[in-house]
Amino acid sequence: MTQLGIIGLGRMGANIAKRLAAGGHRCVGFDPLSTAAEGLNDAGVDTVDTIDALLDRLDSPRNIWLMVPSGEVDDVLDKLIPNLSPNDLVIDGGNSHFKLAAERASKLEAHQIHFVDVGTSGGVWGLERGYCLMVGGEATSFARLEEIFQTLAPGVDAASPTVGRESARSTADRGYLHCGGHGAGHFVKMVHNGIEYGMMAAFAEGFQLLSTAAEEFDDFDFECSEVAELWRRGSVVESWLLDLTAKALTEDPKLEELTGHVDDSGEGRWTIQTAVDLGVPVQVLAAALYQRFSSRGLGDFANRALSAMRREFGGHREKK
Amino acid sequence: MTQLGIIGLGRMGANIAKRLAAGGHRCVGFDPLSTAAEGLNDAGVDTVDTIDALLDRLDSPRNIWLMVPSGEVDDVLDKLIPNLSPNDLVIDGGNSHFKLAAERASKLEAHQIHFVDVGTSGGVWGLERGYCLMVGGEATSFARLEEIFQTLAPGVDAASPTVGRESARSTADRGYLHCGGHGAGHFVKMVHNGIEYGMMAAFAEGFQLLSTAAEEFDDFDFECSEVAELWRRGSVVESWLLDLTAKALTEDPKLEELTGHVDDSGEGRWTIQTAVDLGVPVQVLAAALYQRFSSRGLGDFANRALSAMRREFGGHREKK
Amino acid sequence: MTQLGIIGLGRMGANIAKRLAAGGHRCVGFDPLSTAAEGLNDAGVDTVDTIDALLDRLDSPRNIWLMVPSGEVDDVLDKLIPNLSPNDLVIDGGNSHFKLAAERASKLEAHQIHFVDVGTSGGVWGLERGYCLMVGGEATSFARLEEIFQTLAPGVDAASPTVGRESARSTADRGYLHCGGHGAGHFVKMVHNGIEYGMMAAFAEGFQLLSTAAEEFDDFDFECSEVAELWRRGSVVESWLLDLTAKALTEDPKLEELTGHVDDSGEGRWTIQTAVDLGVPVQVLAAALYQRFSSRGLGDFANRALSAMRREFGGHREKK
Amino acid sequence: MTQLGIIGLGRMGANIAKRLAAGGHRCVGFDPLSTAAEGLNDAGVDTVDTIDALLDRLDSPRNIWLMVPSGEVDDVLDKLIPNLSPNDLVIDGGNSHFKLAAERASKLEAHQIHFVDVGTSGGVWGLERGYCLMVGGEATSFARLEEIFQTLAPGVDAASPTVGRESARSTADRGYLHCGGHGAGHFVKMVHNGIEYGMMAAFAEGFQLLSTAAEEFDDFDFECSEVAELWRRGSVVESWLLDLTAKALTEDPKLEELTGHVDDSGEGRWTIQTAVDLGVPVQVLAAALYQRFSSRGLGDFANRALSAMRREFGGHREKK
Repeated sequence: MTQLGIIGLGRMGANIAKRLAAGGHRCVGFDPLSTAAEGLNDAGVDTVDTIDALLDRLDSPRNIWLMVPSGEVDDVLDKLIPNLSPNDLVIDGGNSHFKLAAERASKLEAHQIHFVDVGTSGGVWGLERGYCLMVGGEATSFARLEEIFQTLAPGVDAASPTVGRESARSTADRGYLHCGGHGAGHFVKMVHNGIEYGMMAAFAEGFQLLSTAAEEFDDFDFECSEVAELWRRGSVVESWLLDLTAKALTEDPKLEELTGHVDDSGEGRWTIQTAVDLGVPVQVLAAALYQRFSSRGLGDFANRALSAMRREFGGHREKK
Repeated sequence: MTQLGIIGLGRMGANIAKRLAAGGHRCVGFDPLSTAAEGLNDAGVDTVDTIDALLDRLDSPRNIWLMVPSGEVDDVLDKLIPNLSPNDLVIDGGNSHFKLAAERASKLEAHQIHFVDVGTSGGVWGLERGYCLMVGGEATSFARLEEIFQTLAPGVDAASPTVGRESARSTADRGYLHCGGHGAGHFVKMVHNGIEYGMMAAFAEGFQLLSTAAEEFDDFDFECSEVAELWRRGSVVESWLLDLTAKALTEDPKLEELTGHVDDSGEGRWTIQTAVDLGVPVQVLAAALYQRFSSRGLGDFANRALSAMRREFGGHREKK
Repeated sequence: MTQLGIIGLGRMGANIAKRLAAGGHRCVGFDPLSTAAEGLNDAGVDTVDTIDALLDRLDSPRNIWLMVPSGEVDDVLDKLIPNLSPNDLVIDGGNSHFKLAAERASKLEAHQIHFVDVGTSGGVWGLERGYCLMVGGEATSFARLEEIFQTLAPGVDAASPTVGRESARSTADRGYLHCGGHGAGHFVKMVHNGIEYGMMAAFAEGFQLLSTAAEEFDDFDFECSEVAELWRRGSVVESWLLDLTAKALTEDPKLEELTGHVDDSGEGRWTIQTAVDLGVPVQVLAAALYQRFSSRGLGDFANRALSAMRREFGGHREKK
Repeated sequence: MTQLGIIGLGRMGANIAKRLAAGGHRCVGFDPLSTAAEGLNDAGVDTVDTIDALLDRLDSPRNIWLMVPSGEVDDVLDKLIPNLSPNDLVIDGGNSHFKLAAERASKLEAHQIHFVDVGTSGGVWGLERGYCLMVGGEATSFARLEEIFQTLAPGVDAASPTVGRESARSTADRGYLHCGGHGAGHFVKMVHNGIEYGMMAAFAEGFQLLSTAAEEFDDFDFECSEVAELWRRGSVVESWLLDLTAKALTEDPKLEELTGHVDDSGEGRWTIQTAVDLGVPVQVLAAALYQRFSSRGLGDFANRALSAMRREFGGHREKK
């Protein structure tokens, strides 16, 4: 079993701590917000009030998992570095830009501290389902943390075997993978989120079509919730996102509780910018991101400019 | 000079009548809305109160230009047919789907009446600038109407000569062109409007970027109106749409008088559907159309579905 | 148990017959290609050499499932109609345009024959996994065929229960659903395929990014096959399409056996055209379709036009 | 009249020198490639063999315009700085990223040297038509260079007046504009190029549609070259890009001399990345960029992945 300090006990950090504790690892957690620790002790997680206390409770060499907002990683690293010892290891398990990993690794390496970037997918369901882990860093660091990854990941039984695949090929079929040097983990996670945006948009547009058609065509009397449920069995679009969509539509068939102002996070944006850097055409992934921008009114001036042009050349007035 | 009856004296029809009258042609106009005829007599256009009167005033064989909403063309044709004579000719100068031209031509041909489809670009400015005319139908019909087209079109001096082009190549450099058999005129007009949507969207997105940047970056102090004016001289994006954008931004720099609910018309939609039929990738033209749909809230269920998925897998709440 | 005649014993039709036979239904199959029947008798399917024979073997009222290319449905219907009896029922289980269902239903209704449209998803895996069935037509027809649908569909155990959903809500959780009147089944299937295109494109673009990055960045040493396998467990993009992608990449990691000329079928196109008709913005679904067109070189003239413009204004020469 | 040193006598730099010389300014040009100076002396431009010689020939305070590839600007600045004097001024007239302007200005300011970023549009036609100039930097620098800008720009007569616009509003109607502090000029130029990409793509897609339709529909007998010529007069899509397209199609109606591998430059990419940073939806501009990537085969792995998925779920084989 491996000892792990966890800094940041938000939704993700707290659940990671719980899953590790349940798996027999010794976890010490810290969060600046004291209420974040609630319930963790009962789940077998040791919690402390200061970073110093966290460092004290861990045997050397220490492993410390950061699960903090991407904008705070460097601050936390700056606080940690003077208090760490050679051969300690820091994991950035959050959603940092993949290019920052190499910079951070260099900074820590100057103090003989190891750095590992872990892309962590699983959302609020990870505690129960396990987390999909994409790891970047030195091979020795990966080996050192492998028990942690094994416990956090869903494991081989979480999906049916892929026909023709030999399990020895890599650890991927257990739900975690060493993807390369510093940044490779966060890169693969970034692309994962880009794909996620595209899939979500595909479903969203499809359900919009169904919803509009159900209103327009008298003779169509399906509900979106039932179509989502239907497609969960035997169709080509079977997916976890569809499962979640079915659940949401079951609870609120017209989604009336939502405004449709769709937020986006760093990784969706970085995917598009990185694709441009690499010269990779990502029509679908970009369209999915822009749709979110538009949903928040960020293209309203453009729309007014279109109306203005129509008025100028054709005398068209806007309809109310 | 050629005699022409014009049915439909809206913005487009009235101006066409005026331009023809000013060019020495004898025009007889009719519109079911009596106020539509106002001012036309002073401009030298003969106006009448009934279609019968219009037919009476024209010598045989008659030429009749329809400038009515696309949904009304067949009704008008049905009224006309019993009262027309062999060798009369009917022009559909509006925005009909190009596939309807062949059907209509067949229907009229059964009565020995000719049919011509004319795509007419120029908007409210055509009276002054001239109209760009895309013509489909029999070569003999085109020849019969050529004086009309010459008067309506802007003429060769409206643009600088194209280097290397011999004027004898076609009539295109005078602003009108026989594009082929029935429907070819409306097809070329449809594609024209598709391109127009794409160009408009390119400008709209660009000005949105400028507008957002002017707010975000303290040190940027351009106004969109001045940038539009600037680009009108010497830049690669010089265009009539830019001229109009400059005018609109000069009058209302923040476009505050508009809501940004951007309408679309048949031709933009047909372009996308026809491209799908022909297997032609039109990423940009389609994106421009969908942007208009979105501006009118037609993708709101999709947006709420995205928010719902984010809530389900990540516990994300919508921001207000 | 229900008797069923099946016309069209291609990949889909043959497997449907086998699954029904295995489920205890009596199936009589016909295909104009005599080799299509091979192996079906061993699977318990009765096969015949003519449509007449097929009709003879079925008790009245007959149920006949057509599983033929969409272009052949009307031909088969024309051959069937004179030989059918009142109260017989014909199912179009293929990929017809949803608007044709109402037309066909009317034509059959004139002969007191019932018509049902069934969207059938499941591909070559349906025999084993079951088919997802989207049904349009009269409620009485749906009820008459329900045993058939139950046998073909994957059944309730094929997916985990949706939290909060009462099973009585509809039959959707068994994998088949009555979606409304004529055409509703094919409509829902059409949208399904549209979503499928979008999801496929999202994955394809993501794996392109991974593939390009693995070449560009020295330090990244993942293989696409392993990333696909990895994401199958615990990630947000878990899906059947990902399972299949993992399988394909395992067998041919660089996908060198393929040319990348991606075909498209009617339903992907109809989705886009229908969305335009309904005014629904489908940026992602359309982008996915156009990507396929482009992959087959259908935008090459556009590309050359871009190069031509670049040469004209900037003197830019194409790179080899 | 103003003295100006010009470093970089490629297509753009040489023409700028010529236009300034023709306008009565004293220009001293340098290019590391000795052949670049050919013909410039005859045009009244002084040319030298070294940067030192260029600096010697200019009176203090000097104005030096860099027209070098964006990757070489910093190298040239590093060579210049030790040899410049306080109050000298350096212009970056090329296509640098707008964020670099502030950095470069700071570096030069440490030596009391001024920096100005000028976005320059006009391509190979600028010599004759004049250049559209977007200027960023201090107001005093703009004033110091204004005679240069006046000579380079097309001037007020290059376009018709904008109705309702007072000329005193800004210098925009003369074809040059002070857009704000450091970087504002290059920013506005970047957006300009983004729009240019979108407009080009709109035309390219439209002409692809025309080209495909002319092949598919027997009765359509237009040539793309004639349609381009036609639209130059009276249509809504009148533009300089259309003029150039008409020229290119006149010379090579099927564009057979081109491969259609469309290059892209920094500014198109930066537009997309900046839009993502600012949260601005740019569906059309991004689609235009990705189209270029695809034209060069940069999405081929994605296409093969699509084919692979189709094969896996549907048994579909690629067509040849």
